[in-house]
Amino acid sequence: MNYSDTIVALATASGAGAVAIIRISGSDATTIADGVFRSVTKNKSLLKQNSHTLHLGHIVDEKRIIDEVLVSIFKNPKSYTGEDVVEIQCHGSIYIQQEIIQLLLRKGCRMADAGEFTLRAFLNGKLDLSQAEAVADLISSDNEASHQIAMQQMRGGFSSEIAKLREELLNFASLIELELDFAEEDVEFADRTQFRDLIERITFVLKRLIDSFAVGNVIKNGIPVAIVGEPNVGKSTLLNALLNEERAIVSDIAGTTRDTIEDELIIEGIGFRFIDTAGIRDTKDVVEGIGIKKTFEKIEQAQVVLYLFDAVQFVDNPEAFIVEIEKIKNKYPLKPLLIVPNKIDKISDEGVSNLKSVLDTIKNSKYILLSAKQSIGVDDLKNQLLSFVNTGALRNNETIVTNTRHYDALLKAFENIKKVQYGLVSNLSSDLMAIDIREALYHFGLITGQVSNDELLGNIFANFCIGK
Amino acid sequence: MNYSDTIVALATASGAGAVAIIRISGSDATTIADGVFRSVTKNKSLLKQNSHTLHLGHIVDEKRIIDEVLVSIFKNPKSYTGEDVVEIQCHGSIYIQQEIIQLLLRKGCRMADAGEFTLRAFLNGKLDLSQAEAVADLISSDNEASHQIAMQQMRGGFSSEIAKLREELLNFASLIELELDFAEEDVEFADRTQFRDLIERITFVLKRLIDSFAVGNVIKNGIPVAIVGEPNVGKSTLLNALLNEERAIVSDIAGTTRDTIEDELIIEGIGFRFIDTAGIRDTKDVVEGIGIKKTFEKIEQAQVVLYLFDAVQFVDNPEAFIVEIEKIKNKYPLKPLLIVPNKIDKISDEGVSNLKSVLDTIKNSKYILLSAKQSIGVDDLKNQLLSFVNTGALRNNETIVTNTRHYDALLKAFENIKKVQYGLVSNLSSDLMAIDIREALYHFGLITGQVSNDELLGNIFANFCIGK
Repeated sequence: MNYSDTIVALATASGAGAVAIIRISGSDATTIADGVFRSVTKNKSLLKQNSHTLHLGHIVDEKRIIDEVLVSIFKNPKSYTGEDVVEIQCHGSIYIQQEIIQLLLRKGCRMADAGEFTLRAFLNGKLDLSQAEAVADLISSDNEASHQIAMQQMRGGFSSEIAKLREELLNFASLIELELDFAEEDVEFADRTQFRDLIERITFVLKRLIDSFAVGNVIKNGIPVAIVGEPNVGKSTLLNALLNEERAIVSDIAGTTRDTIEDELIIEGIGFRFIDTAGIRDTKDVVEGIGIKKTFEKIEQAQVVLYLFDAVQFVDNPEAFIVEIEKIKNKYPLKPLLIVPNKIDKISDEGVSNLKSVLDTIKNSKYILLSAKQSIGVDDLKNQLLSFVNTGALRNNETIVTNTRHYDALLKAFENIKKVQYGLVSNLSSDLMAIDIREALYHFGLITGQVSNDELLGNIFANFCIGK
Repeated sequence: MNYSDTIVALATASGAGAVAIIRISGSDATTIADGVFRSVTKNKSLLKQNSHTLHLGHIVDEKRIIDEVLVSIFKNPKSYTGEDVVEIQCHGSIYIQQEIIQLLLRKGCRMADAGEFTLRAFLNGKLDLSQAEAVADLISSDNEASHQIAMQQMRGGFSSEIAKLREELLNFASLIELELDFAEEDVEFADRTQFRDLIERITFVLKRLIDSFAVGNVIKNGIPVAIVGEPNVGKSTLLNALLNEERAIVSDIAGTTRDTIEDELIIEGIGFRFIDTAGIRDTKDVVEGIGIKKTFEKIEQAQVVLYLFDAVQFVDNPEAFIVEIEKIKNKYPLKPLLIVPNKIDKISDEGVSNLKSVLDTIKNSKYILLSAKQSIGVDDLKNQLLSFVNTGALRNNETIVTNTRHYDALLKAFENIKKVQYGLVSNLSSDLMAIDIREALYHFGLITGQVSNDELLGNIFANFCIGK
């Protein structure tokens, strides 16, 4: 990969819109753009314009006018990438986007790789590695919680904490390594009490960050909830009831497709993915048996099981339902089970009492009496679902780790720090301790990008979209 | 509709991208944007910034940071709408787009209607009506020809010609109406020779523009070509062969979905829409009979019929094919018919000679020997398809009318001008001629928007996308 090339890519969403942005970055960005730009007002050269200014004109290929555009100029280092950047705002036809990009490629730009603008920003020191990763998270954030975490990470909350601890640790590492040079003299440059304090602080922070991953992971990926229930027990009515105004807002904005959020609900900023499954009634029928096997496979993937049934049917024959519930509980003793009798508006008060007394006998599970249609119990259900997520850290705006790569590095750093801690207690020799410290420093550095290599960068930025 | 409101909309394509643009226009645009913007560098007020400048900062809702953004400032009248315009370039997550738009709505913006930015540009005299319409055409242009025409129209080539003629005609109208005031004195303020010259020039221009609609319509909507042929005669191989590098370019750019151009090919800038039909073999079977009826319905919609068949099968039984071809010709004597035997690489030289001699006997049709797989005859086929379009006007960069509304207005103006011409020849009295001139002026004015009303504007801009 050659990072001295000038690169180009579409930066806005693909497809047709009113306008689109084509982004160019690199040392030749302004020269190349100037070569295809003709100002509307006068013979203006883009090369002579100030940074952070906008210019109206045409993109021309020899005599052919391709589009009327607005050009933004950003001069290195005051740009996203830290290089010279030119952004061309053109009309949003796919044809025009293509024509302009093709023209720029002919004039000497290279097509940007996925994430290459952000990669260059990292290489030019505009942001550290975890901030760069947060950019991708921010773009893919689709709810308040994931957005908040990505925003916090992008602003450096997470990595500045790590970088600060790493620097303190680095100081001690140097002092301890210095001791090795004077090994025969048996001196201690590194104050062991201070060092012990630092290691304790680091342990505390690492433990908190590692623990936060449980909630971070949930926030990033949503909580999979298996809805076990026969057809017509009210699954879609339930999803619609849970949805109410949240979905309405989503669909108000033009272009949000319903497909992508099908069966995914966001409740108070936490995403829940509802996995639809069939019932699991006992059967000797082979085909139905396959269906039950699939249901169990889906339950396997879920973190929570929601058992939905028709309360009217339950009243007629409670035993069959109890058998099903017990079957799920026996197969997945550790998965939280939420029992939800629907259509309770259709049974008598006596029926409700009976229902309750039967459900009360089922241990290690919770139940919520629901009428999805009449919106009875819907708020209880929301709260119950939310209770499976420990959102305390989120509410207190604490740093939350959502990235598996960071999590792995934190775990490894934690291991090494534990070894160091043990070394201090057991008066391990400085040379052995120095190795563990260096290891911990390495894993800290991986998070912020102070330690990196081409493979690591390649893996990270390959997941970005093109144009970012 | 209240045009003094400050409006907001997403201006880039919907969906997630690296970045997105949210556009605000109206007298409060800068104040509202300033209220939610916090500059990165210092306490910068957007209200104090120059037009055409860019500013880095955060969009904030009270204490909550929604995104890091770039804000562009355009001061009235130097903006797209002619009003104060602020554009917010944010990260392209749908969630962030929504949050910022919702925030701006709370702060006093109103959601823009479809095309409202361009409508305001028209109302503020930034462009005339036909230029405004060209903006929508430009955004939806998907090939070189439609792009070229939209670009020309947007730059005013078409409407400036009309506006100039209208002005000249208006002068004469005034003079002739002045004559009415002095009717008793029998004076002629309007030089009849000059007036006759003008009417002739107008007739000439109108006729050319009206004639151009035939090609303009084709360019805008593509040429529907019915491919009549049984399954497995090589339809998709043919489409792929016609397609070659054109489609490759389209799919190179990220995000161009193949679905939308399925069976639509662009050959030298002209769109062809291929309508797939079954064969029309004679049958007594009822179900197949329905299929044949459908084929005929599809041929009805096409402008060109392409009859594709397997040359090997033809050699075995030429008569059956001749019957089919004659059937199509008899039913649609005026539709150009292109006979295309495919797989000619699979028959002997003698077979080819026989094939040719049979096809030569079919009158009023053309044939092309094809091997779609071996790419034999593909260029001939392209040229033949292109020959159905008179692209002379396009190549000479003449003004081409593509808009049905313009076409209708031109036709009506032409009628009135013809009446005026007749009046001049037959020495019609000035008062009667004045009525026809006024009518013609009215229809000219409809094109440029010098004459307009709410209903007309409503119809035009309702077809725009939101954000433009």
